[in-house]
Amino acid sequence: MVLLEERIRKDGKVYPGSILKVDSFLNHQMDVTLLNDMGREFKNIYSDCEVNKILTIEASGIGIACITAQFFNCPVLFAKKTKTKNISGMVYKTQVKSYTHGTTYDVIVSKEFLSKNDKVLIIDDFLAEGNALLGLIDLCRQAGAEVVGCGIAIEKGFQPGSQRINNVGVRVESLAVIDSMDDGEIKFR
Amino acid sequence: MVLLEERIRKDGKVYPGSILKVDSFLNHQMDVTLLNDMGREFKNIYSDCEVNKILTIEASGIGIACITAQFFNCPVLFAKKTKTKNISGMVYKTQVKSYTHGTTYDVIVSKEFLSKNDKVLIIDDFLAEGNALLGLIDLCRQAGAEVVGCGIAIEKGFQPGSQRINNVGVRVESLAVIDSMDDGEIKFR
Repeated sequence: MVLLEERIRKDGKVYPGSILKVDSFLNHQMDVTLLNDMGREFKNIYSDCEVNKILTIEASGIGIACITAQFFNCPVLFAKKTKTKNISGMVYKTQVKSYTHGTTYDVIVSKEFLSKNDKVLIIDDFLAEGNALLGLIDLCRQAGAEVVGCGIAIEKGFQPGSQRINNVGVRVESLAVIDSMDDGEIKFR
Repeated sequence: MVLLEERIRKDGKVYPGSILKVDSFLNHQMDVTLLNDMGREFKNIYSDCEVNKILTIEASGIGIACITAQFFNCPVLFAKKTKTKNISGMVYKTQVKSYTHGTTYDVIVSKEFLSKNDKVLIIDDFLAEGNALLGLIDLCRQAGAEVVGCGIAIEKGFQPGSQRINNVGVRVESLAVIDSMDDGEIKFR
């Protein structure tokens, strides 16, 4: 998506260790006009698919997910990160390892809102190692829900996330795929 | 807002201790069509005000804030809850006491995205004690930003939040104000 690539080039900040900060328009401050263009693009990509629920994970996926849901006329469900040890039987639970923080946390959704009747599009802002997405796919499969695919804003194409998601049989579509960020120069696929 | 009150009556669940769960349509699963109606209503209420930024707090405020921002043609900034002790000088920081959890946490926004040029509408899903809103107002005032007002989905009118926000000179508009929930029966103002 040219518009997103241009914006990343203009306002993204590259730091050593392949860190890309896009917090001026995507995941701290959010440019809702851009999110709208992204939501429309996700709809174009998945126009042939029946989607009746969008699933994301708190916090930075929620904005894109809600704006995108307007194009699919469906509700959004966001998975919650939790440290609560004693979770009741009312939730589906999985574990996600944070590549950035080196920690593992539990992610839950209420059983009430995910079922075998759901055709789920998973939306998130970033894809790198793919651990969060694998967790969300696991939650869907525990519920018997069908995962139609994943829609990602920015994919780090030099990390294995996309391949790992494909390996569990799920389609991934990313609006901007970065192939390298060496010396602070961003190269898109 | 009649539509929201009807939805609370239909799908809200009241538990002992004046706990209202609306996670089927507002803060876990989100009915984006309803959020749209709410965003339009916030725009109607604040139509006479110049708003150039919407501020909310992660996670459950983000969806409403993003949908609402479409009506104001402005970006959304969400404050982050953090436990990181050593925050650099790059953020405004405040403390918020959680009424529900009995804990205090730090809330931050990047200094880059809040300034004296901003006219801020604060959006959140719930207002009870008002601690989160007071924290967000504090962040705005540290930045020299003007707080135009607060837009709340559901206010527990029997708790002092609204009065406490007014006491610091800020307008509060809530789409549904609950006066009592005794014996599981919700009475709106």
